[in-house]
Formats: sequence, structure tokens, C-alpha cells
Amino acid sequence: MNLIDRYNKVRQLSVQICNPLQIEDYVVQPVVDVSPPKWHIGHTTWFFETFVLKPNMMGYQEFDPDYNYVFNSYYETVGNRVIRTDRGNLSRPTVADIYKYREYVDKAMESFLCVEPSPEIKELLELGFNHEEQHQELLYYDIKYILGHNPLFPAYDKHYKAPAFEQKPAGWINIAEGVYEVGFEGEGFCFDNELSRHKVYLNNYQISTAMVSNAEYLEFINANGYHNFRFWHAEGWDWVKTNTIEAPMYWHFIDGGWHNYTLAGLKPVAMDEPVCHISYYEAYAYAAWKGLRLPTEFEWEVAATLFNWGKSWEWTESAYLPYPGFSKAEGAIGEYNGKFMVSQKVLRGASDATSPGHGRITYRNFFHPNLRWLYCGIRLAKS
Amino acid sequence: MNLIDRYNKVRQLSVQICNPLQIEDYVVQPVVDVSPPKWHIGHTTWFFETFVLKPNMMGYQEFDPDYNYVFNSYYETVGNRVIRTDRGNLSRPTVADIYKYREYVDKAMESFLCVEPSPEIKELLELGFNHEEQHQELLYYDIKYILGHNPLFPAYDKHYKAPAFEQKPAGWINIAEGVYEVGFEGEGFCFDNELSRHKVYLNNYQISTAMVSNAEYLEFINANGYHNFRFWHAEGWDWVKTNTIEAPMYWHFIDGGWHNYTLAGLKPVAMDEPVCHISYYEAYAYAAWKGLRLPTEFEWEVAATLFNWGKSWEWTESAYLPYPGFSKAEGAIGEYNGKFMVSQKVLRGASDATSPGHGRITYRNFFHPNLRWLYCGIRLAKS
Amino acid sequence: MNLIDRYNKVRQLSVQICNPLQIEDYVVQPVVDVSPPKWHIGHTTWFFETFVLKPNMMGYQEFDPDYNYVFNSYYETVGNRVIRTDRGNLSRPTVADIYKYREYVDKAMESFLCVEPSPEIKELLELGFNHEEQHQELLYYDIKYILGHNPLFPAYDKHYKAPAFEQKPAGWINIAEGVYEVGFEGEGFCFDNELSRHKVYLNNYQISTAMVSNAEYLEFINANGYHNFRFWHAEGWDWVKTNTIEAPMYWHFIDGGWHNYTLAGLKPVAMDEPVCHISYYEAYAYAAWKGLRLPTEFEWEVAATLFNWGKSWEWTESAYLPYPGFSKAEGAIGEYNGKFMVSQKVLRGASDATSPGHGRITYRNFFHPNLRWLYCGIRLAKS
Amino acid sequence: MNLIDRYNKVRQLSVQICNPLQIEDYVVQPVVDVSPPKWHIGHTTWFFETFVLKPNMMGYQEFDPDYNYVFNSYYETVGNRVIRTDRGNLSRPTVADIYKYREYVDKAMESFLCVEPSPEIKELLELGFNHEEQHQELLYYDIKYILGHNPLFPAYDKHYKAPAFEQKPAGWINIAEGVYEVGFEGEGFCFDNELSRHKVYLNNYQISTAMVSNAEYLEFINANGYHNFRFWHAEGWDWVKTNTIEAPMYWHFIDGGWHNYTLAGLKPVAMDEPVCHISYYEAYAYAAWKGLRLPTEFEWEVAATLFNWGKSWEWTESAYLPYPGFSKAEGAIGEYNGKFMVSQKVLRGASDATSPGHGRITYRNFFHPNLRWLYCGIRLAKS
Repeated sequence: MNLIDRYNKVRQLSVQICNPLQIEDYVVQPVVDVSPPKWHIGHTTWFFETFVLKPNMMGYQEFDPDYNYVFNSYYETVGNRVIRTDRGNLSRPTVADIYKYREYVDKAMESFLCVEPSPEIKELLELGFNHEEQHQELLYYDIKYILGHNPLFPAYDKHYKAPAFEQKPAGWINIAEGVYEVGFEGEGFCFDNELSRHKVYLNNYQISTAMVSNAEYLEFINANGYHNFRFWHAEGWDWVKTNTIEAPMYWHFIDGGWHNYTLAGLKPVAMDEPVCHISYYEAYAYAAWKGLRLPTEFEWEVAATLFNWGKSWEWTESAYLPYPGFSKAEGAIGEYNGKFMVSQKVLRGASDATSPGHGRITYRNFFHPNLRWLYCGIRLAKS
Repeated sequence: MNLIDRYNKVRQLSVQICNPLQIEDYVVQPVVDVSPPKWHIGHTTWFFETFVLKPNMMGYQEFDPDYNYVFNSYYETVGNRVIRTDRGNLSRPTVADIYKYREYVDKAMESFLCVEPSPEIKELLELGFNHEEQHQELLYYDIKYILGHNPLFPAYDKHYKAPAFEQKPAGWINIAEGVYEVGFEGEGFCFDNELSRHKVYLNNYQISTAMVSNAEYLEFINANGYHNFRFWHAEGWDWVKTNTIEAPMYWHFIDGGWHNYTLAGLKPVAMDEPVCHISYYEAYAYAAWKGLRLPTEFEWEVAATLFNWGKSWEWTESAYLPYPGFSKAEGAIGEYNGKFMVSQKVLRGASDATSPGHGRITYRNFFHPNLRWLYCGIRLAKS
Repeated sequence: MNLIDRYNKVRQLSVQICNPLQIEDYVVQPVVDVSPPKWHIGHTTWFFETFVLKPNMMGYQEFDPDYNYVFNSYYETVGNRVIRTDRGNLSRPTVADIYKYREYVDKAMESFLCVEPSPEIKELLELGFNHEEQHQELLYYDIKYILGHNPLFPAYDKHYKAPAFEQKPAGWINIAEGVYEVGFEGEGFCFDNELSRHKVYLNNYQISTAMVSNAEYLEFINANGYHNFRFWHAEGWDWVKTNTIEAPMYWHFIDGGWHNYTLAGLKPVAMDEPVCHISYYEAYAYAAWKGLRLPTEFEWEVAATLFNWGKSWEWTESAYLPYPGFSKAEGAIGEYNGKFMVSQKVLRGASDATSPGHGRITYRNFFHPNLRWLYCGIRLAKS
Repeated sequence: MNLIDRYNKVRQLSVQICNPLQIEDYVVQPVVDVSPPKWHIGHTTWFFETFVLKPNMMGYQEFDPDYNYVFNSYYETVGNRVIRTDRGNLSRPTVADIYKYREYVDKAMESFLCVEPSPEIKELLELGFNHEEQHQELLYYDIKYILGHNPLFPAYDKHYKAPAFEQKPAGWINIAEGVYEVGFEGEGFCFDNELSRHKVYLNNYQISTAMVSNAEYLEFINANGYHNFRFWHAEGWDWVKTNTIEAPMYWHFIDGGWHNYTLAGLKPVAMDEPVCHISYYEAYAYAAWKGLRLPTEFEWEVAATLFNWGKSWEWTESAYLPYPGFSKAEGAIGEYNGKFMVSQKVLRGASDATSPGHGRITYRNFFHPNLRWLYCGIRLAKS
């Protein structure tokens, strides 16, 4: 695909995801982790304007200088910004204004891309595409949170269907002790956190062919798993008690049965599907209750060709840390990954919400252990 | 005016106030004290549906049972409700839905009012009108906050002009010691907190004919008033330091001069206008710096025919407490005023934002001493 | 009594109150409102050193310059200080050091008082005595809190007996409408907040001869008074729910019966004694449940010669505000009362913990409406 | 050493560490991470009473049943407990009471140890000794915090001298790529978190022979390292700004020079000593500023025979996670380590405050990345 087509395809998908929204849905921020959809639409545009057009396109006229303040996410290098918790307090720029901004930048990008860019800019564009795809996934999380926490439980799309996914039958894959290679290698894009490819030593382990299902997780709930500290990290146990957690996010016990909010609205829980929207703490506690454990990210990567993945991001036991030889890029781009490498857990795989072509076997997703508005589930391992 | 006309007039004014808003402006809640405009539009409608139509109109069909949960403000009697801090997290019902709700209830009210209602219901309607007028004033405060705290400083209406107001020339009114009567008496509506009319003993005092102007207040700022604890209550001093307060809300020092955000946008401060948007703490500190004091609410009421008022609510030294013989109504209506009679200060007068005909010389407005998003100013007194 | 005797008597009483304490009891600060007893012992000494000795005694050598920082309470005029919440974090100066400081200052004071001081200094001394007496009362509150919130419930003194107090038989005193005088007048000491004596107009009212007893208050508990919002201020209701309040402070339901912690240890609640350790919110709610109300501070003062008082401070409906003509003294002494005149309620009377001779019919005590570690109770009124 | 001697020696060291304290120093808890020394003295005693005497010694009479509530630290299995933040609010039991408790348990232990215990009990005793040694180290941290945050800066012991320690001359140790074994093996005690011994693959790396000195760290301060976000994790940068961190804990800039609080009192910073009392965030930022990094815990362990260690715990880049094959013990003992294996960083080595014989090359210490009241420093690595 040529660059303009690739650009347009990526950009259109973001708009398409927002298509079923009402204007009001674009505006709110019910918790700090959720950003208003209009912010995503503006921020992904700002990324191309700030890092591609302004430094590289002769005579480019900034759309509105105030937008840098409004749509910068966390890049300290690029100046001040609206603090994250205030994103949902801004009624202006309006959704219509932001779409105008988007069109303006897209038009400029189209001119800019008429001439073959330098390899450095191509690299930057590739990062921009992947960045936008990450925000596409976040859009799904955030929209689901916004609608799923509304007392009216409005559907995102009554006819929404998740991409097809089939698990392998339940069973264990054996991996033999030894030195393995992990990390990205070869052509194509990867994030800096997947580098460099390097050797790790793994002990004998087994990893499940299938993810934990809602039915299996319900057994843990019914066995009082949420009320027995023995299965929990001390920090997880505090979290359970402080937040009176009793079930995955979006589960509601209504009229004698468990339901959960889906993008198609409130539905009885589909028992054979992988459990989703549980924190790392819950994933760990479930595994402990089973007498098992979560895989490390390397155990996952080494075995991943042997099972089906891509339904929900899978919590691993690994902390998010730099690989041997990791180094940060210069400037604002260098703020992309490295500065988050403390206190977070790695998730591997991909999810229903992952944009087509975005996932990869070496991809390292990362979130704090208490978060569960992302699409995340459990695969078990044992030694 | 007949009841239907009165009803329609009140109801239309709320809509008219919101006329210049974008849909996004209806949704946000930047601080807990501010409610999203769409909430006001729904809540005032809910009031008529809940207290007039549902108990009194045969065969009335509730618009949507979930709306009771969404639009109840604080009436414990009427059931659960969205907690106040969550009002800005709800994208649904949409603005369009809420206007449909409004039309539906208005149509039902029109039918209902075709027959002359009982005196009890007339009284309830009068309360409903006054309740809606109070929310009209809050709409101005909240809209101003939403737009005035946006980094783009959008105008509410570039051509907005405040109602004409003329102060008396600066001077002192002398009131002689003695027994005076205060509180409401006579025909027409009043709130329960204005009753009963009763005698108070006042010492000799003087009260200013004019409110404190922006120019006068600026002298306090320039005299370092915000940095000298001697003029402040201990609680006010804490508030100043914790919030690094340096000037009235909406004031910004830009390019060497003080500007403030007005409904017509950001403007140089109009020096001869009454200072506005200062907390009780600031009003008290200003008075202390001048070697003067604020009037009590009774001093204000007794003298109020002798000066012009109505530009901004005027902080008084009085705490908001029940009058002798005060009694709460039964049921939800009884929750209107009495339960707030602790830890608040009384303001007297009216403001630019007060709906026509809503103010009265015996009217008791009340807010916590730290608040300043309301339209409020300073009149001085001395013994 | 001559000045030296008066000085010594006041100073000795503080030490005597602390006599039953272990060193450890002097150190802790379980909540912000409680100060460690050693802080009181040091602070009352600092008061005489700072305001009497340092400015007035030739050649006086400060005991330790760091103590100004440690023992200043809130006097902004006098410089920086340990923030209030940190008082319980300081193990040094030790109790022994502070008693040395006390002896040092007492000795200097004795020299200083050999010569008849000027009237200004006499006034200051009188304030120092009254200040120390206030801290003596706080010592009782704080010691009771420290021991009464310890899981071992140690007695302060197993043989502690409260001063004798007899209530009048239950009944109502009628006071006729009219102009009355309130506030301090005459010889002797009073605080600035009791001035000036002035006229108030009171409507007809009745006030109870007796305070509400524990037995009566228990009826309110048993009638579910803590679970019915109708009796509460909105702010009080929030307080009840946030803190899951179910009974007065120090009450514990043990083995089927109500007990409370007293200075003599944990005892069954004495049903005929006045209820104590309830917040203003609870006092108000109790009165509302009875269909009655609390008296204003002026209703209390006008009737106070007609009933017995002095067992527990009595919450009034009045906010703590300046009297007509109130003015603050210059300098640090001016910070004594005036700067607290917002958001607090007046209590009248005295308590078991009030030092002999400290109370007065015009005395205005004041606390925030949520506090209840002080000795405070309820007297009812009606219109 | 026989068991009784070993027991007595361990127990006496705790008492000896507290020897220079005033009673008041035993009581306070200035921040949540610090426990009052009297709590350590009681808790270590409670450990032997609860896990050794009560279940195993026939006819043992519990000293005081309330002490279980007071001195339990976090063992959910063993029942309720005083919440951690309340430890400093308890004046009772007194220090004298706790020493009586200690003597009582020590006497019982002496009887109990007259008979050779079973291997299971011996294992438990060994855990008890190591547990007490860990609290000995914490005692130093906590005492230093209590005295070092007192505005009077009292010395713990004016003549205190840290154990002798000599660094190797500055230089780099080269370790070649390959498979290495890490984790505990052999005779003697280890914690469960050091098991099992297993293979890891390490890439070529270099590790410094010497720790970073105060002089070197001062260069980072002087180069504005605390004011440049580029060197920091996002979380670390927030921490720096929220807490206005400008230097290591205990450093004070006085009269033109840097001083730090030591156990011997306030002293000029000894420039050639290893920097101490810096958080992981600071250790990371320092390394980033040098263009270097921290070693992983395995890089540290593999190289540790080649440099001198033991002056201060050394932050590693590794998260605290279970080793392959890690399993928790049954019952309360199983709560020892495993439940903390999330969100913490590993430190390796030992410190001045580590009890003799307690350290080991495989020892895994762990703390949250923001903490710095422990004795901790920096050793650098590079790839």
C-alpha cells in the first residue's frame, strides 16, 4: 500500500469507530484513565501536525496555536498541556471544530505525501500510524466505559459483533527448558520496547491452549474467591476491599443471573467466552486459586505459535522493563515508551479492539495492575 | 398573568438562556458546584413531573422511569440519584432527549392547567416557578464557569450586555438604634426561610450607598491584601494559601493589565463596576483592610430601600439560620431550605443573573463562604 | 489572691491534670484536633515566655530558640511553627525537657512578678491565666481521647469522680418577648468575643430546666434516629454516613448493653446523666426528632440564672459571630478569637473539665459542628 | 552456636539498638512507613509467642490476649490488628509494659528451648531469628527518620560510627554473555523468595566496582538533574514535582553547604562516601543522566564476588517477582514474602544497618520505588 493510502486508511478507521456516537458521548471523562473521544480525534491529528507537518512542511500554517495546549498528551518536550484529569471539562473546541482540524491536517498531509519523504520521515509516519492505531484501541475501551457506566446502558451499536475468534480445545502445551530468543527481528515496524532481540533461559513449563472462560471464572466467584485473602497480593487485597470488587468490570447481577455490558448493550454473560475486564490482581488471584500461575511474557512469546491468541490482551507475570540494549530515541519521540518502564505489568496478544495488522507476537502492551477497562483476560501456566 | 402563561414564560426563559450554547457546553461539569446545563434543563422538568404531574394528573404516563434517578438533585425522600459529582460523566440522555422530555412534560402541564388547580397545587406550582428561576440563575453561573475556565475563553454571546444598573453616589446611610421588623409579610410568594416576620434589635450603624468597585478592590490587591494574614479569618487564610488565590475569579493579568472573563468574552476589567466573584473570605478581608465590616442581613434589609441593589448578591456577616418560628413543610418539599441551615453565609440582594421578578427585599440567598462562581459582591458597613 | 499566687495556682493545675499520665501518653496525637499533652505543657509555657517575659523582662534569656517553632500554636504574627498535624510526630523535646522549660519560665516569672507590673501587663497576665485554663480543659478532652481510643481502654484514674452536679427537675422555663441585654459587663476578666454588651430582641420562648439525659438520647438511637435523614442537616447526614456514626463518641455496645469510656475506665452508661460527646449535628437531629429545637446563645444567656448549668457545654443554634462593636486587639493577641468567627457554632455553659472560676454566664465557647471530643450536651428549647 | 545462645544473641541486639532512645522516641510514627520502635520490640516478641509458644509449648499462658491485636503486623491469617497508620496513636502498652512482655516471652522461650525442638520448629525459629534481624534493620531506619525529621535534629548517639567499609577503586568489571545460575543453594537459612536456584541468560555487561559517591551525586544536583524530566520515569517525575524533591533524604543546605543528618547528628556531607537515602526513581535518573543504567538483580548477583558490597542496599532494575518454581508455605508463614510480589523493586547487598550474618549474595530485599528512608544507594552498569 502506498503511503497516502496507508495514511487515509488509518485515519478513516478512527472516524469510523466514532461513527455511532452522539456528540455528547465525545465529551465526557468519567474516570481519569478514560479520555473523551473528541480528545483522541484531536490528539491523533495533533501528532501528525506537530511531529510531521510543523517541522517538515514548508509554509505549513498551524491550524490553531491553542490546540497544542489542548491536545498534547504527555510530551513534556512539546510544552504545557491540559492536565489529564481536565480533559473532560473542556466543551470547546467542539466536535465539529475538531473534525475541521482533522480535515485541515489531512489535506495538508495529502499534499505533503505527494513527494516521497525521506527515510527518517517515513519512520516517523510509521510511528504516527501505529500511534493512531493504539488510540483506536483506546477509543473502544473509552467508549465502552462511557456508555457502560451510564445508568441507561445505551448500546454502542445494537448489531455490534466482535471479530470471529476460535480457541484451541483446552489442554497444556509443554515447552522444554533451554535458551530461547525473544524480541523483534526483521523487516517492518516495531516499537522500541521490543528491541533488541535477545536470549533468555526458560525452565520447563506448560502453558494452556485456551484462555480462562467466563464459566470458569464464575466458579472462582462462587467459591468466594473475592473474599479470601490467601489468593491475593497484599496490594490486590487492599484494592478489592477499598473498591468492593465482586466480579469483572461490566458484570451485573440482575434478576438472578449475571449479565454484562457489551458494545451491543446489556446481555447475559456468554459463559464459553474468555473472561474479560479483570485486573492483573484478579488474574493472579484466579491462577492462585487454581494452584497455577500466569506465564511470564517470554514463556508466552516462545509458545505463542502453538495456541490461538488475539481475543483479549493476556496479563503476564512480567513487569514492564527494558530489554537488554534498550535505548530511547532523542527528543519527544523518545518519551514514547521508556518513561513508563516502572510499576506496570506486561500484557501479550491482542484483542477484539486491536486494529487490523497492529498486533504481533513480540508486541509488549503494558498497564498498571489495577486497571481493567482495557480488554484483558487470563491464560494459565505451570512449572 | 394566568397560570399557563406564567408557566410558559418561566419555562421558555430557561431554554432561552441556553440558546447560545453548543451541545458540548451542555455536558461538562468542571467542578462539583457546577452542574451541566443539560442537567438543569432535565431537573427543572423532573420537578414538575415528580411533584405536580405524577401525584396529581390522572393517567399521566411517566416519560422514562430512569429519569428520576438521573434528574433528582438531592431529595432523599424521592429515592436514589446520580451522585452530584457524577453529573458531568453522563453523556446520555442526550440534549435532544432532554428537550423531548421537556416538551412532553410541558404538553402534559398544559393539559393539566386547563382546569383550575386546587390552592395546594397552586402553591406547589408557585414553588416550581421559583425553583426554575433559581436554576436559571445557576445556569448563568455554570455556563460562565464552563466557558470561562476553557483555555480558549469562548464568549457566551459576543454582544451580551448586562441589565442596566446604576449605583447611588458613594456615601453612608445612618440607621438609628432600635427595634425593627424583618422577614416576609403580605401577599405573594416567599420561601419558607423568609418566615416568620419578626422583630430584631439593631444598634446604630452606617451602611454604604454604593458597592465596592473593581478599582477599589484593586487597591486591596496592590496593597498586598492577599499576602497579609491579619485581614483574614484563619479558615480564609488557609483557603487563600491552599488555592493560591491572588484576585477575584475570572481575573487574569495579561500583557501588563487586569482582564476578566465576561459573558461577552475576555475584556479589560471595568474599573467603576462593582467587584464580583469574590468569596465571603475575600469580602471580609477587604472590609477588614478598610477598617470596616460587612453588614448583617438585618442591617441590610432594614436599609435596603435607601440604596440601589440588584447588581450582585451581597455577602453579609450573617450565618444562614432559621428565623424564630421557622418550620419545615412535610415531605420532599420540606427538604427545600431547612436542611442547609448550617455552615453557610447569607447573601442579600439580587444579580444580573436573577430572573425578572424573582428578587425581593426579604430574600435570603445562601452559599458556603469559599464559593465565588456565583455573582457576588461587597457592600460595607460600620458601627 | 496576689498575682504570684494566682500564677502558681493556675500553673500547678496543669501539671496536676497530667499527674496520672505515663510518659507515652504525653506524646501521641491520634487525630488532628487532639494535641499531645506535652505540647499543651510546653505551649502554655511558651505563651508566658513569648508574650510576657521576652518583651518585658530585662535581660531575660530565652530557654531555647527552637521552642518558638515547636510550641507556637497558630499565631502567624510570631513566626513559623510545626504544623498542627505534626505535633504527634515529635519525640523531642522530651517530657522531662519540657518540664525543665516550665520550671525555668516559672522561676523567671516569679522574679518578674516581684515588682508590681503595669496595668497592660496585668491584663496580659490575666489573658495568660485564662489561656492556660482553656488548655487545662483541652487537656482533659485530649487525654480522654488518647486513652479512650486505645484498644486497651486504660483508665486515666480508676477513682476519678466528676465534680458534683445536680439538675433541676425536668420542666420548661417561660421567657417573655422583649428586648434583653446580653454580653459581658462589669469588673473582672472577659474575652473580647463577649463584648460589647448590647440589646437583642427575643420572641417568646421556653427553655428546658434540665439537659437531655443518656436515657432520653438512647430512645432516639432506638427509634432509628441515626438512620432517618429527615432529622438531619444535609451536612450532618453526610457526616453520619461517611463516618458510620451510630451513637455518641465513647459509647460501645458490649455484651448486650451500652457502655461508655469514662476517665475511670469503661462503664455501663449512666442513664440519668446528661448525654455527652455528641456533635452539633446530633444535638440538632435529636431536637428535630423531638419536634423541638436548640436555644440560641441569647435565649440561653437570658434564662441561664433559672436553671443549673456547668456539667457539659451546651450546643446552641447560634453561629459564632462578632457582637456589635467587636474589635480585635493589635498584634498577636488580636489573633485570639476574631479570626475564628466563621463556620463554627457557639456553646454555652461549662463542663466537668472547666477549671474552677473559668466559666461565666456570658462565656462564648465555639467549635465546628462535627466535633464531639469536647464535653458537650443538649438543652432543648421551643417557641 | 546453640539455639538458646542464638536466641539470646538475636533478642539482645534489638534491645541494644534501642538503648540510646528516650521513652518518647519509642512512641511516634511520623509517616506510615515508619513504625514506632516500641511496636518493633513488641511485634518481634509477638512473633515468637504466636508462632512458637502458643501452638507448641504445653501450658503456655498468653501474656495478654489484647496484644495479638496490637502487635500483629499484617498476617491476615492471625486475626484483626491495629491498622498500620494507627501504630503511632497508641500510648499503651507502655514501653515498660512491652519490655515486661519481652522478658516474659524470653523466659518461656528459654524453658521451651531446654528440650531439643523438632526440625519443623527449628525451621520456624530460624525464620523468627531472621525476622527479628529484619526488624533490627528497620529499627535503624525508623529511629533515624524519627530523630532526623525532628526540628531539633537530636543525635541518636553522638559517638556513633558506621561499620568499616572500603570500596574497590572505581572501574568496570566485564561479565561475558552466557547462562548463569542464580538463587540460593546449599546449607543454612534462606527466604523462600531466593528459591529455587535456576539458570538465567545474561548478555555481555559491565558493572561498576564502586558505588556512586556523594560527590558524584552532587554533580547531578548541580547539573539541574532534579529539574530535567528527560532523565526520569513519568512516575518519578510526578513524584519529584509533587514532593518538591531536590536532594537525597536528610540533606539540608545550610550556610552555603550541604549537610546531612546522620545517627551522630547533623554533619557536612562526606563527599567520598556512597550516596544514600535516594529513591529508585532518583537512582534511575542519576544513571540516565550518566548515560548508564542500573544492573538487574541477576547481573548484580553474578558479579558480586568481584566487588565490595554491604554499605547500602543497591537498587536494581529488577521488579520483585517470583523465581521459577517459587511456592508459598501453608498458613501464616506463607504470607511472608509472596504476597508482596507486585509493584516493588529488588535491592541487593546489605547496609550499615544490616545485622551481622544476616546478608547473603542471593538475598533479595524489596521496596516500593518511591521509598528512601531505607539505607540505599547506587551501583551503575552498562551493556
